[in-house]
Amino acid sequence: MSPFSHIVRFECEESGRFYFADLGPDADGPPSPGAQLPAFRSIDELFSNTGKETVTVRRILAPLPYDGVPIYCVGLNYRSHAKEAKLSIPSYPPLWTKPARSVAHPNEEIRVNDFCAKSLPDYEGELVFVTSKECRDVTPTEAKNFILGYTVGNDLSCRLFQLQKYSGGQFFFAKAFDKFAPIGPTLISPDMLASGKSFQVVTKVNGELRQEADFRKDMIFSPEKILSHMSQGTTIPAGTAVMTGTPAGVGAFRQPRVFLQDRDTVEVSMQKVGTLRNRVVFE
Amino acid sequence: MSPFSHIVRFECEESGRFYFADLGPDADGPPSPGAQLPAFRSIDELFSNTGKETVTVRRILAPLPYDGVPIYCVGLNYRSHAKEAKLSIPSYPPLWTKPARSVAHPNEEIRVNDFCAKSLPDYEGELVFVTSKECRDVTPTEAKNFILGYTVGNDLSCRLFQLQKYSGGQFFFAKAFDKFAPIGPTLISPDMLASGKSFQVVTKVNGELRQEADFRKDMIFSPEKILSHMSQGTTIPAGTAVMTGTPAGVGAFRQPRVFLQDRDTVEVSMQKVGTLRNRVVFE
Repeated sequence: MSPFSHIVRFECEESGRFYFADLGPDADGPPSPGAQLPAFRSIDELFSNTGKETVTVRRILAPLPYDGVPIYCVGLNYRSHAKEAKLSIPSYPPLWTKPARSVAHPNEEIRVNDFCAKSLPDYEGELVFVTSKECRDVTPTEAKNFILGYTVGNDLSCRLFQLQKYSGGQFFFAKAFDKFAPIGPTLISPDMLASGKSFQVVTKVNGELRQEADFRKDMIFSPEKILSHMSQGTTIPAGTAVMTGTPAGVGAFRQPRVFLQDRDTVEVSMQKVGTLRNRVVFE
Repeated sequence: MSPFSHIVRFECEESGRFYFADLGPDADGPPSPGAQLPAFRSIDELFSNTGKETVTVRRILAPLPYDGVPIYCVGLNYRSHAKEAKLSIPSYPPLWTKPARSVAHPNEEIRVNDFCAKSLPDYEGELVFVTSKECRDVTPTEAKNFILGYTVGNDLSCRLFQLQKYSGGQFFFAKAFDKFAPIGPTLISPDMLASGKSFQVVTKVNGELRQEADFRKDMIFSPEKILSHMSQGTTIPAGTAVMTGTPAGVGAFRQPRVFLQDRDTVEVSMQKVGTLRNRVVFE
């Protein structure tokens, strides 16, 4: 049993400090600004039920238990996306990172400088899991015990720098820009995910449907298999968010191709988690 | 003018705490264990000459100003290595990261588990630079002001996971294993590098010469160009170590191919910096 059902992290109105709250199994997304909630200064205090205070929500934050932890990304993890990209599926999940500074909060504006605006910016709606404890060399079965919960994210990418001739085929730089990793709005427990209401990540741009996939059917490497592989010979810090790959429907593979424009709004949604909404603003 | 000439970081005999000392322009490598040095608890205290204490060297540490900062790596940055790998040179330096937990100290044993031992472990001797201050959107000319100094490193890599069919061509996982980033033993100032005595990184395995390259002649993207590119749209933390790529001579491209074996000792050297020596031990 998870020690929570539905976590939200927010900045409070009273002091501007950050708090965690458990919204309970019936919530269908984050609370509205102005809501008053019993909350805790850290996720460890939430789990031990110590230091509870009632505070007012000012803005929702990425639901990550610790700051400063780099994010992992997985490539080619949906059959539909491998097909649209005309790439064969490797034996193990392709991995890279996004720096801790790339995290963006729900509703935060993604300010894109001229360098990035000209480099074919694109969205990737993804299921995200977050680790609970440090781990290393875990099997897929053991990996279950190190997954805190699930949310959604947007693996924003400047496609120009994913091309072989520009960056030698390494994806890191294309995806590492400041604020290129919006995550949230809430984190649901593995039990909530298993209850079967959340199985589809839906991505829209300016309200238009772009990606919709059932990860139970289309995903190649499960979260447990990904975490097991990541941890071989490698210590994975507690609070690591893992973006598990994107399904078909990214802008770069549409006919005709379409990249993000100034003031586009990208929404990534999953039932119970809610909608992660970010507007892209060219500087 | 750099505020130092030659930095060493070490664990002291008296308290086991970590210290920084400036060895001065005449040193040709790190001090020996047992040496007594005037030293400082942080690099900022060294620069402001506050809190000086005389302590005894127990062991030399990776000469990084701050812990917990991920490392950047550059691929295909030597013409000789691009040639042996039969790859064309991209417009910008290929980049990826190694996690903070991959740092290993000079003389530290690299313990390799069975999973990595069977995955074609190999060395890559490299020039490393370290950033002094947080930066973003710097030009190559401005980048000079954010380079603290230079040292050498070993970008240890399990070649199996660099193959397209195993990891989809993303290099991160192959290079992210714990202790796969030995760095040191000392950090020389940009002025010391410019003085022209340090221009060659030499790599030996069990005393046998494997790599030797003059980075003034063979390197494609200079440290300043690399840092400028890395920082476009992206905040680079202070204390970021950047492994600038490897020249020809890695085991995977030798005739016949040769990978690291249990109890091999890899040495990476540069004049003034000294020798970074690590023994690989299969668990």
